[in-house]
Amino acid sequence: MRFEVHTQRREQMVDVTREVLSAVAKSGVREGCVVVFCPHTTAAVTVNEVVDPDVATDILSGLARLIPNEGPWSHAGGNADAHLKATLVGSSVTLPIVDGEVALGSWQGIFLCDFDGPRRRSLTAVVSARGVS
Amino acid sequence: MRFEVHTQRREQMVDVTREVLSAVAKSGVREGCVVVFCPHTTAAVTVNEVVDPDVATDILSGLARLIPNEGPWSHAGGNADAHLKATLVGSSVTLPIVDGEVALGSWQGIFLCDFDGPRRRSLTAVVSARGVS
Amino acid sequence: MRFEVHTQRREQMVDVTREVLSAVAKSGVREGCVVVFCPHTTAAVTVNEVVDPDVATDILSGLARLIPNEGPWSHAGGNADAHLKATLVGSSVTLPIVDGEVALGSWQGIFLCDFDGPRRRSLTAVVSARGVS
Repeated sequence: MRFEVHTQRREQMVDVTREVLSAVAKSGVREGCVVVFCPHTTAAVTVNEVVDPDVATDILSGLARLIPNEGPWSHAGGNADAHLKATLVGSSVTLPIVDGEVALGSWQGIFLCDFDGPRRRSLTAVVSARGVS
Repeated sequence: MRFEVHTQRREQMVDVTREVLSAVAKSGVREGCVVVFCPHTTAAVTVNEVVDPDVATDILSGLARLIPNEGPWSHAGGNADAHLKATLVGSSVTLPIVDGEVALGSWQGIFLCDFDGPRRRSLTAVVSARGVS
Repeated sequence: MRFEVHTQRREQMVDVTREVLSAVAKSGVREGCVVVFCPHTTAAVTVNEVVDPDVATDILSGLARLIPNEGPWSHAGGNADAHLKATLVGSSVTLPIVDGEVALGSWQGIFLCDFDGPRRRSLTAVVSARGVS
Protein backbone atom coordinates (compact mmCIF):
# COMPACT_ATOMS: atom_id res chain seq x y z
CA MET A 1 0.00 0.00 0.00
CA ARG A 2 1.24 3.47 -0.92
CA PHE A 3 0.23 6.60 0.95
CA GLU A 4 1.14 10.27 0.69
CA VAL A 5 2.58 12.60 3.30
CA HIS A 6 2.75 16.35 2.73
CA THR A 7 5.47 18.08 4.73
CA GLN A 8 5.42 21.77 5.68
CA ARG A 9 9.03 22.52 6.62
CA ARG A 10 12.53 21.70 5.36
CA GLU A 11 13.11 19.34 8.28
CA GLN A 12 10.12 17.60 9.78
CA MET A 13 9.15 14.27 11.28
CA VAL A 14 5.56 13.23 10.51
CA ASP A 15 3.86 10.48 12.50
CA VAL A 16 2.57 7.84 10.07
CA THR A 17 1.76 5.14 12.61
CA ARG A 18 -1.99 5.26 11.91
CA GLU A 19 -1.49 4.69 8.18
CA VAL A 20 0.79 1.70 8.79
CA LEU A 21 -1.53 0.11 11.36
CA SER A 22 -4.39 0.56 8.93
CA ALA A 23 -2.46 -1.23 6.13
CA VAL A 24 -1.76 -4.13 8.48
CA ALA A 25 -5.39 -4.36 9.61
CA LYS A 26 -6.61 -4.38 5.99
CA SER A 27 -4.16 -7.14 5.05
CA GLY A 28 -5.61 -9.58 7.54
CA VAL A 29 -2.10 -10.88 8.30
CA ARG A 30 -1.86 -12.31 11.85
CA GLU A 31 1.82 -13.30 12.02
CA GLY A 32 4.50 -11.68 9.92
CA CYS A 33 6.14 -8.32 9.24
CA VAL A 34 5.37 -4.94 7.77
CA VAL A 35 8.05 -3.06 5.85
CA VAL A 36 7.65 0.71 5.45
CA PHE A 37 9.81 1.98 2.59
CA CYS A 38 10.68 5.56 1.63
CA PRO A 39 11.29 6.00 -2.13
CA HIS A 40 13.01 9.40 -1.68
CA THR A 41 16.71 10.17 -1.38
CA THR A 42 16.40 13.18 0.96
CA ALA A 43 13.82 11.68 3.32
CA ALA A 44 13.86 8.59 5.53
CA VAL A 45 11.76 6.52 7.88
CA THR A 46 12.38 5.75 11.55
CA VAL A 47 10.78 4.38 14.71
CA ASN A 48 11.11 6.51 17.84
CA GLU A 49 9.14 8.11 20.65
CA VAL A 50 5.74 9.46 19.71
CA VAL A 51 4.51 10.53 23.15
CA ASP A 52 6.68 13.64 23.66
CA PRO A 53 7.02 15.66 20.42
CA ASP A 54 10.25 17.14 21.81
CA VAL A 55 11.98 13.88 20.94
CA ALA A 56 11.39 14.45 17.21
CA THR A 57 12.52 18.07 17.61
CA ASP A 58 15.74 16.86 19.23
CA ILE A 59 16.38 14.22 16.59
CA LEU A 60 16.15 16.88 13.88
CA SER A 61 18.21 19.48 15.77
CA GLY A 62 20.83 16.89 16.75
CA LEU A 63 21.16 15.78 13.13
CA ALA A 64 21.46 19.42 12.01
CA ARG A 65 24.35 19.95 14.45
CA LEU A 66 26.06 16.77 13.23
CA ILE A 67 25.61 17.43 9.53
CA PRO A 68 25.45 21.14 8.72
CA ASN A 69 23.77 22.21 5.52
CA GLU A 70 26.80 24.37 4.68
CA GLY A 71 29.13 21.50 3.91
CA PRO A 72 31.66 21.60 2.13
CA TRP A 73 29.83 19.39 -0.41
CA SER A 74 30.33 18.42 -4.06
CA HIS A 75 26.66 17.88 -4.97
CA ALA A 76 24.88 20.95 -6.34
CA GLY A 77 21.39 21.66 -5.14
CA GLY A 78 22.04 22.62 -1.53
CA ASN A 79 20.71 19.36 -0.10
CA ALA A 80 23.78 17.13 0.27
CA ASP A 81 23.24 17.18 4.05
CA ALA A 82 19.75 15.76 3.49
CA HIS A 83 21.15 12.86 1.43
CA LEU A 84 23.62 11.91 4.17
CA LYS A 85 20.92 12.16 6.85
CA ALA A 86 18.67 9.91 4.75
CA THR A 87 21.38 7.25 4.55
CA LEU A 88 22.05 7.41 8.31
CA VAL A 89 18.38 7.24 9.34
CA GLY A 90 17.59 4.68 6.66
CA SER A 91 15.18 4.06 3.80
CA SER A 92 12.95 1.52 5.58
CA VAL A 93 11.79 0.09 8.88
CA THR A 94 10.57 -3.47 9.45
CA LEU A 95 8.17 -4.27 12.30
CA PRO A 96 6.86 -7.61 13.57
CA ILE A 97 3.17 -8.48 13.40
CA VAL A 98 2.19 -10.71 16.30
CA ASP A 99 -1.36 -11.97 16.76
CA GLY A 100 -2.65 -9.47 14.22
CA GLU A 101 -1.02 -6.45 15.90
CA VAL A 102 2.11 -4.48 15.01
CA ALA A 103 4.46 -5.18 17.93
CA LEU A 104 5.37 -1.53 18.58
CA GLY A 105 6.65 -0.68 22.04
CA SER A 106 4.37 1.51 24.13
CA TRP A 107 6.36 4.71 23.42
CA GLN A 108 7.05 3.96 19.75
CA GLY A 109 5.62 5.49 16.62
CA ILE A 110 6.65 5.36 12.96
CA PHE A 111 7.85 8.59 11.35
CA LEU A 112 8.58 9.89 7.89
CA CYS A 113 11.61 12.16 8.27
CA ASP A 114 11.83 14.89 5.67
CA PHE A 115 15.25 16.53 5.42
CA ASP A 116 14.58 18.60 2.30
CA GLY A 117 10.97 19.69 2.42
CA PRO A 118 8.43 20.99 2.20
CA ARG A 119 7.37 18.39 -0.35
CA ARG A 120 4.80 15.77 -1.25
CA ARG A 121 6.31 12.52 -0.08
CA SER A 122 5.03 8.96 -0.29
CA LEU A 123 5.71 5.75 1.62
CA THR A 124 5.06 2.14 0.66
CA ALA A 125 3.94 -0.38 3.28
CA VAL A 126 4.32 -4.08 2.43
CA VAL A 127 2.64 -6.57 4.78
CA SER A 128 3.94 -10.14 4.63
CA ALA A 129 2.69 -13.25 6.35
CA ARG A 130 5.42 -15.39 7.88
CA GLY A 131 4.78 -18.00 5.23
CA VAL A 132 5.96 -20.85 7.40
CA SER A 133 5.12 -24.09 5.72
CA MET B 1 9.80 -15.05 19.67
CA ARG B 2 10.42 -12.49 22.41
CA PHE B 3 13.43 -12.63 24.71
CA GLU B 4 14.73 -10.43 27.51
CA VAL B 5 18.10 -8.75 27.88
CA HIS B 6 19.16 -7.14 31.15
CA THR B 7 21.74 -4.40 30.75
CA GLN B 8 24.14 -3.29 33.49
CA ARG B 9 25.36 0.11 32.30
CA ARG B 10 23.94 3.25 30.68
CA GLU B 11 25.61 2.40 27.38
CA GLN B 12 26.19 -1.24 26.58
CA MET B 13 26.16 -3.60 23.63
CA VAL B 14 24.97 -7.11 24.49
CA ASP B 15 25.61 -10.02 22.12
CA VAL B 16 22.25 -11.70 21.37
CA THR B 17 23.43 -13.88 18.48
CA ARG B 18 22.77 -17.13 20.36
CA GLU B 19 19.15 -16.21 21.09
CA VAL B 20 18.50 -15.30 17.44
CA LEU B 21 20.13 -18.47 16.08
CA SER B 22 18.05 -20.48 18.53
CA ALA B 23 14.80 -18.85 17.33
CA VAL B 24 15.74 -19.68 13.73
CA ALA B 25 16.60 -23.29 14.58
CA LYS B 26 13.29 -23.76 16.41
CA SER B 27 11.31 -22.33 13.49
CA GLY B 28 12.53 -25.00 11.08
CA VAL B 29 12.74 -22.37 8.30
CA ARG B 30 15.36 -23.34 5.69
CA GLU B 31 15.17 -20.36 3.30
CA GLY B 32 13.98 -16.94 4.37
CA CYS B 33 14.80 -14.10 6.77
CA VAL B 34 14.87 -13.31 10.45
CA VAL B 35 13.95 -9.83 11.65
CA VAL B 36 15.16 -8.79 15.11
CA PHE B 37 13.13 -5.82 16.38
CA CYS B 38 13.77 -3.56 19.38
CA PRO B 39 10.54 -2.16 20.91
CA HIS B 40 12.41 0.55 22.89
CA THR B 41 13.07 4.16 21.91
CA THR B 42 16.44 4.54 23.68
CA ALA B 43 17.91 1.21 22.58
CA ALA B 44 18.62 -0.27 19.16
CA VAL B 45 19.88 -3.37 17.39
CA THR B 46 22.88 -3.75 15.12
CA VAL B 47 25.17 -6.29 13.43
CA ASN B 48 28.89 -5.78 13.89
CA GLU B 49 32.10 -7.51 14.96
CA VAL B 50 31.73 -9.97 17.81
CA VAL B 51 35.29 -11.34 17.91
CA ASP B 52 37.09 -8.33 19.44
CA PRO B 53 35.00 -6.70 22.21
CA ASP B 54 36.94 -3.46 21.62
CA VAL B 55 34.81 -2.90 18.53
CA ALA B 56 31.65 -2.56 20.64
CA THR B 57 33.54 -0.28 23.05
CA ASP B 58 34.57 1.94 20.15
CA ILE B 59 31.07 2.05 18.67
CA LEU B 60 29.71 3.29 22.00
CA SER B 61 32.54 5.78 22.63
CA GLY B 62 32.40 7.04 19.05
CA LEU B 63 28.65 7.61 19.35
CA ALA B 64 29.16 9.40 22.68
CA ARG B 65 31.65 11.79 21.04
CA LEU B 66 29.24 12.44 18.15
CA ILE B 67 26.14 12.92 20.29
CA PRO B 68 26.97 14.27 23.74
CA ASN B 69 24.48 13.70 26.52
CA GLU B 70 24.68 17.42 27.40
CA GLY B 71 22.80 18.64 24.36
CA PRO B 72 21.27 21.31 24.10
CA TRP B 73 18.04 19.32 23.95
CA SER B 74 14.31 20.09 24.35
CA HIS B 75 13.20 16.70 25.70
CA ALA B 76 13.21 16.42 29.49
CA GLY B 77 14.55 13.26 31.06
CA GLY B 78 18.22 13.54 30.24
CA ASN B 79 18.14 10.90 27.50
CA ALA B 80 17.60 12.84 24.27
CA ASP B 81 21.04 11.67 23.10
CA ALA B 82 19.87 8.07 23.54
CA HIS B 83 16.81 8.68 21.32
CA LEU B 84 18.94 10.09 18.50
CA LYS B 85 21.44 7.24 18.80
CA ALA B 86 18.55 4.74 18.61
CA THR B 87 17.31 6.30 15.37
CA LEU B 88 20.79 6.29 13.82
CA VAL B 89 21.60 2.68 14.76
CA GLY B 90 18.08 1.52 13.96
CA SER B 91 15.20 -0.40 15.49
CA SER B 92 15.70 -3.66 13.60
CA VAL B 93 18.08 -5.83 11.64
CA THR B 94 17.10 -8.33 8.94
CA LEU B 95 19.30 -11.33 8.17
CA PRO B 96 19.04 -13.97 5.44
CA ILE B 97 18.47 -17.63 6.27
CA VAL B 98 20.15 -19.87 3.70
CA ASP B 99 19.98 -23.66 3.90
CA GLY B 100 18.69 -23.45 7.49
CA GLU B 101 21.52 -21.19 8.71
CA VAL B 102 21.59 -17.44 9.42
CA ALA B 103 23.98 -16.09 6.79
CA LEU B 104 26.12 -14.06 9.23
CA GLY B 105 29.63 -13.20 8.12
CA SER B 106 32.41 -14.90 10.06
CA TRP B 107 33.14 -11.79 12.20
CA GLN B 108 29.50 -10.76 12.68
CA GLY B 109 27.28 -10.95 15.72
CA ILE B 110 23.92 -9.39 16.57
CA PHE B 111 23.82 -6.83 19.40
CA LEU B 112 21.24 -5.07 21.48
CA CYS B 113 22.58 -1.54 22.01
CA ASP B 114 21.36 0.12 25.18
CA PHE B 115 21.88 3.88 25.26
CA ASP B 116 19.90 4.58 28.43
CA GLY B 117 20.42 1.64 30.76
CA PRO B 118 20.70 -0.18 32.96
CA ARG B 119 17.27 -1.63 32.16
CA ARG B 120 15.34 -4.74 31.35
CA ARG B 121 15.06 -4.75 27.59
CA SER B 122 13.36 -7.18 25.21
CA LEU B 123 13.77 -8.05 21.56
CA THR B 124 11.37 -9.77 19.18
CA ALA B 125 12.67 -12.18 16.52
CA VAL B 126 10.36 -13.01 13.60
CA VAL B 127 11.42 -15.86 11.33
CA SER B 128 9.81 -15.93 7.88
CA ALA B 129 10.06 -18.52 5.14
CA ARG B 130 10.61 -17.06 1.66
CA GLY B 131 7.09 -18.07 0.78
CA VAL B 132 7.86 -18.42 -2.89
CA SER B 133 4.95 -20.05 -4.60
CA MET C 1 21.54 -15.07 -4.23
CA ARG C 2 25.11 -14.06 -3.40
CA PHE C 3 27.19 -11.79 -5.59
CA GLU C 4 30.68 -10.31 -5.32
CA VAL C 5 31.78 -6.69 -5.43
CA HIS C 6 35.43 -5.74 -5.75
CA THR C 7 36.25 -2.32 -4.35
CA GLN C 8 39.25 -0.21 -5.42
CA ARG C 9 39.61 2.34 -2.62
CA ARG C 10 39.43 2.46 1.19
CA GLU C 11 36.09 4.28 1.04
CA GLN C 12 33.85 3.65 -1.92
CA MET C 13 30.18 3.30 -2.78
CA VAL C 14 29.48 0.78 -5.55
CA ASP C 15 26.13 0.75 -7.35
CA VAL C 16 24.69 -2.78 -7.12
CA THR C 17 21.17 -1.97 -8.32
CA ARG C 18 21.51 -4.07 -11.47
CA GLU C 19 22.51 -7.20 -9.52
CA VAL C 20 19.56 -6.80 -7.13
CA LEU C 21 17.03 -6.20 -9.91
CA SER C 22 18.37 -9.27 -11.68
CA ALA C 23 17.91 -11.43 -8.54
CA VAL C 24 14.31 -10.23 -8.27
CA ALA C 25 13.59 -10.88 -11.94
CA LYS C 26 15.01 -14.41 -11.69
CA SER C 27 12.90 -15.17 -8.61
CA GLY C 28 9.63 -14.58 -10.41
CA VAL C 29 8.20 -12.94 -7.26
CA ARG C 30 5.47 -10.41 -8.14
CA GLU C 31 4.54 -9.07 -4.68
CA GLY C 32 6.93 -9.13 -1.74
CA CYS C 33 10.30 -7.80 -0.61
CA VAL C 34 13.96 -8.12 -1.38
CA VAL C 35 16.50 -7.93 1.44
CA VAL C 36 20.09 -7.08 0.53
CA PHE C 37 22.46 -8.10 3.34
CA CYS C 38 26.13 -7.24 3.85
CA PRO C 39 28.06 -9.97 5.73
CA HIS C 40 31.02 -7.65 6.50
CA THR C 41 31.66 -5.56 9.61
CA THR C 42 33.47 -2.67 7.90
CA ALA C 43 31.11 -2.33 4.95
CA ALA C 44 27.39 -1.57 4.72
CA VAL C 45 24.52 -1.22 2.29
CA THR C 46 22.33 1.80 1.61
CA VAL C 47 19.78 3.28 -0.78
CA ASN C 48 20.47 6.79 -2.05
CA GLU C 49 20.77 8.90 -5.18
CA VAL C 50 22.33 7.16 -8.16
CA VAL C 51 21.91 9.90 -10.77
CA ASP C 52 24.58 12.34 -9.56
CA PRO C 53 27.75 10.52 -8.41
CA ASP C 54 28.60 13.57 -6.26
CA VAL C 55 25.98 12.39 -3.76
CA ALA C 56 27.99 9.24 -3.01
CA THR C 57 31.16 11.35 -2.78
CA ASP C 58 29.47 13.61 -0.25
CA ILE C 59 28.12 10.72 1.82
CA LEU C 60 31.65 9.32 2.13
CA SER C 61 33.29 12.69 2.84
CA GLY C 62 30.57 13.69 5.30
CA LEU C 63 31.02 10.40 7.17
CA ALA C 64 34.80 10.90 7.20
CA ARG C 65 34.35 14.33 8.81
CA LEU C 66 31.95 12.90 11.41
CA ILE C 67 34.04 9.84 12.26
CA PRO C 68 37.76 10.46 11.76
CA ASN C 69 40.01 7.46 11.24
CA GLU C 70 42.35 8.82 13.93
CA GLY C 71 40.08 8.11 16.86
CA PRO C 72 40.93 7.70 19.80
CA TRP C 73 39.90 4.03 19.48
CA SER C 74 40.52 0.85 21.48
CA HIS C 75 40.33 -1.63 18.59
CA ALA C 76 43.64 -2.41 16.96
CA GLY C 77 43.81 -2.62 13.17
CA GLY C 78 43.20 1.00 12.23
CA ASN C 79 39.63 0.49 11.09
CA ALA C 80 37.50 1.28 14.15
CA ASP C 81 35.99 4.21 12.23
CA ALA C 82 34.86 1.76 9.53
CA HIS C 83 33.07 -0.41 12.10
CA LEU C 84 31.13 2.57 13.48
CA LYS C 85 30.23 3.77 9.97
CA ALA C 86 28.99 0.26 9.12
CA THR C 87 26.66 0.27 12.15
CA LEU C 88 25.31 3.74 11.31
CA VAL C 89 24.67 3.01 7.62
CA GLY C 90 23.40 -0.48 8.37
CA SER C 91 23.95 -4.09 7.37
CA SER C 92 20.88 -4.46 5.15
CA VAL C 93 18.22 -2.71 3.12
CA THR C 94 14.72 -4.02 2.44
CA LEU C 95 12.81 -2.94 -0.65
CA PRO C 96 9.22 -3.63 -1.72
CA ILE C 97 8.43 -5.63 -4.85
CA VAL C 98 5.20 -4.42 -6.41
CA ASP C 99 3.80 -5.97 -9.59
CA GLY C 100 7.11 -7.73 -10.27
CA GLU C 101 9.21 -4.58 -9.97
CA VAL C 102 11.42 -3.28 -7.14
CA ALA C 103 9.65 -0.13 -5.97
CA LEU C 104 12.74 2.11 -6.07
CA GLY C 105 12.15 5.83 -6.36
CA SER C 106 13.24 7.42 -9.63
CA TRP C 107 16.49 8.81 -8.13
CA GLN C 108 17.31 5.77 -5.99
CA GLY C 109 19.95 3.10 -6.39
CA ILE C 110 21.32 0.45 -4.06
CA PHE C 111 24.95 0.76 -2.94
CA LEU C 112 27.54 -1.34 -1.21
CA CYS C 113 29.53 1.07 0.99
CA ASP C 114 33.06 -0.04 1.67
CA PHE C 115 34.72 1.79 4.57
CA ASP C 116 37.86 -0.36 4.75
CA GLY C 117 38.74 -1.37 1.22
CA PRO C 118 39.99 -2.16 -1.23
CA ARG C 119 38.61 -5.68 -0.77
CA ARG C 120 36.55 -8.43 -2.28
CA ARG C 121 33.11 -7.98 -0.75
CA SER C 122 29.93 -9.97 -1.19
CA LEU C 123 26.23 -9.25 -0.70
CA THR C 124 23.31 -11.65 -0.29
CA ALA C 125 19.92 -10.83 -1.83
CA VAL C 126 16.89 -12.72 -0.49
CA VAL C 127 13.64 -12.35 -2.43
CA SER C 128 10.46 -13.23 -0.53
CA ALA C 129 6.89 -13.42 -1.76
CA ARG C 130 4.35 -11.77 0.54
CA GLY C 131 3.04 -15.21 1.45
CA VAL C 132 -0.42 -13.91 2.22
CA SER C 133 -2.74 -16.80 2.70
